[in-house]
Amino acid sequence: MDKNISPAVIKRLPRYYRYLGALKAKNITRISSKELSERMKVTASQIRQDLNNFGGFGQQGYGYNVENLYVEIGKILGLDKSNQMIIVGAGNLGQALANYQDFNNNSIGFQVIALFDVNPKLIGITVHGVEVHDIDDMEEFIKNHEIKIAALTLPQDQAPKIAKDLVSWGIKGFWNFAPVDLTLPDSVTVENVHLAESLMTLTYNIHSREDSEGAE
Amino acid sequence: MDKNISPAVIKRLPRYYRYLGALKAKNITRISSKELSERMKVTASQIRQDLNNFGGFGQQGYGYNVENLYVEIGKILGLDKSNQMIIVGAGNLGQALANYQDFNNNSIGFQVIALFDVNPKLIGITVHGVEVHDIDDMEEFIKNHEIKIAALTLPQDQAPKIAKDLVSWGIKGFWNFAPVDLTLPDSVTVENVHLAESLMTLTYNIHSREDSEGAE
Repeated sequence: MDKNISPAVIKRLPRYYRYLGALKAKNITRISSKELSERMKVTASQIRQDLNNFGGFGQQGYGYNVENLYVEIGKILGLDKSNQMIIVGAGNLGQALANYQDFNNNSIGFQVIALFDVNPKLIGITVHGVEVHDIDDMEEFIKNHEIKIAALTLPQDQAPKIAKDLVSWGIKGFWNFAPVDLTLPDSVTVENVHLAESLMTLTYNIHSREDSEGAE
Repeated sequence: MDKNISPAVIKRLPRYYRYLGALKAKNITRISSKELSERMKVTASQIRQDLNNFGGFGQQGYGYNVENLYVEIGKILGLDKSNQMIIVGAGNLGQALANYQDFNNNSIGFQVIALFDVNPKLIGITVHGVEVHDIDDMEEFIKNHEIKIAALTLPQDQAPKIAKDLVSWGIKGFWNFAPVDLTLPDSVTVENVHLAESLMTLTYNIHSREDSEGAE
């Protein structure tokens, strides 16, 4: 498989996966790139190009086998592997992620197996069946369970130092919710979810539309 | 002010705002585009170009006034206006957002003033001082308070219908956490936070690096 897939294509794969999952749920077994393009509001040629990066999955005049394509895209995304994850920071957001059904779901391979916090009031409680551990036990836990993924839901000033420690203990990928840019070795993947920034983009767009409509 | 600012520039503004806020917190009053570029890891020329879209804020050889630039970017982002928001769906994620200090903070103008849910067990409770209301009261609430922003933290199958209702009641912008693409009039802004998709992008990158390192 060609490893030089552009980040833009990668970003689109989970959306294909979501639409294929929805088709599967409706017992649709086969779909043409034209039909899929109408549902997803992208061009059929974009779909064909994107999927050709991975060898192509369609047959001319025949369309895509929904189940097959769903499974194959899942494999490309690494969802067929065990993706055990810890959440560092068991505040509201950390607890919400531990509870979040859309991904904490065996069918797509993610599993939150521990939360960590410094707050004695949180240590020992369970959230959705997952225990909050003392952050001092994190190194041993990561090494024992060979954890590679950590969600960071902790304050901005603590995130960079803790991320550095986590890398030295074996973490390969961060799902970073702390409003800070992490500076880490190139071998480590960071996916940022900067909530406040996303909200600011929204307000910019709302207000700039209001201004241009003269509805101020 | 030129209204044809590219979406890529808009996406970068909240990050400038975050860095300027951090400089302000350190009592740094003035910064050159070179220094700012080193901190932000973008080129100084990109910074100058981005800010020139808004009339430019620097003086040759003098740098940017941090406080001034912070305030001006805040105005561009609409943060000087009141941004009252409701959250539709008072489950874990909705409650986490109501509690989230990074934006639910008067200094940047956002204020969550109500949560809504259908669940009788949730209706009437307060989260971070914000009450959960019956979703049946939502229309009246939005109209009375002239709310323009709604966060959607509700299941995928309910989001499209409720979003359509909300638009008819006056909502202009959605912060959408439901894993679905909303089809709404062009006058309405949607900012998606697709958490499961962001996590899949992360696992793709982790696994594809592992494969290419032969560490499988």
